[in-house]
Amino acid sequence: MPSALILIADGTEEMEFTISYDTLVRAGVETTSAFVPDKSEVVSERTTSPPFAKGSRGINIMPDTYFDPADCGPEKYDLLVIPGGAKGAETMSKDHSVQKLVRDYLKHDKFVGMICAGSLAASTSKLPKQPLTSHPSVKSHLEKDFDYSEEPVVVSGHLVTSRGPGTAFPFALTLVELLCGADVRAKVRKPMVFPSGTPF
Amino acid sequence: MPSALILIADGTEEMEFTISYDTLVRAGVETTSAFVPDKSEVVSERTTSPPFAKGSRGINIMPDTYFDPADCGPEKYDLLVIPGGAKGAETMSKDHSVQKLVRDYLKHDKFVGMICAGSLAASTSKLPKQPLTSHPSVKSHLEKDFDYSEEPVVVSGHLVTSRGPGTAFPFALTLVELLCGADVRAKVRKPMVFPSGTPF
Repeated sequence: MPSALILIADGTEEMEFTISYDTLVRAGVETTSAFVPDKSEVVSERTTSPPFAKGSRGINIMPDTYFDPADCGPEKYDLLVIPGGAKGAETMSKDHSVQKLVRDYLKHDKFVGMICAGSLAASTSKLPKQPLTSHPSVKSHLEKDFDYSEEPVVVSGHLVTSRGPGTAFPFALTLVELLCGADVRAKVRKPMVFPSGTPF
Repeated sequence: MPSALILIADGTEEMEFTISYDTLVRAGVETTSAFVPDKSEVVSERTTSPPFAKGSRGINIMPDTYFDPADCGPEKYDLLVIPGGAKGAETMSKDHSVQKLVRDYLKHDKFVGMICAGSLAASTSKLPKQPLTSHPSVKSHLEKDFDYSEEPVVVSGHLVTSRGPGTAFPFALTLVELLCGADVRAKVRKPMVFPSGTPF
């Protein structure tokens, strides 16, 4: 059974996190969320032992585990997902352990998914120039170093990028297809009951 | 500022909950989640004082508060939302206090949103026959007592019903439009970056 690690931090966009996690679980992917602390924050009881992640719109989500780089590598998971939400994506993309993981996953032909401001991690991880998309609000930080696209989902080798909450379903379904095949994608998609005419 | 109460229980579909909550917050709606305990469950420490709701696909969400019918009425909130997820929707729809709230909100011309299996609450609350939709899996429980529709979102007076995770965005945006107007709907929708051709 394929497996996925989804990072979460204070300020993560909770729709992007939840749609990715839930859709992967529906596909039978063993999915784990890991809390990445904001290292720039003054250490308090909450940040040293956080009981939950504070989502960007106020939903508090309990992570499955806390981010331990030594236990999060490509030998353990087939997919690493970095969701958006400005503050959460900043915490993840500036974290050197996350940057190293992004490079390690791609080096070992495992998948990395980034959505919304999460795509900033492609830049901070110094990935080579390749097709990529992101939320329009961070386009200016990425368009010089990447072949910037405005497609809803961009697959570049094992790097999968997407734009925002409105593209989170096609992003998650693309990850399902890459890990489990087109049949599983179709099987997961049907009971979600998308409106007719939905373009994914 | 309009206000909304979104119920959550063990087994709530976390995408439907999160998309509704997050979208309403983006629209400036003061949004509160309240945990409805499963009264049929054997009382344990967790159920008497639950630290979080266990989502249908394993995401644990911390509610803002615990469901107290006396503090959840139409004099306090403009909108009551009942999300799906089979087990969560069963807990809510069988709860007599929830059923009374549904009737009270509609009686006072406040909005009630139900999505997926959440629409079962229309039946258990004994609402009069009117247009309604739900997840296809519970259609057979509703089609006799309602004018069953397969539209993604059905607005019947102050009752708004919808189908599943795939219709959660148009459901939430419709609630935003009803509470805040079409301009706010458009303003909230744009930065979500839906793929071109999205039919809502």
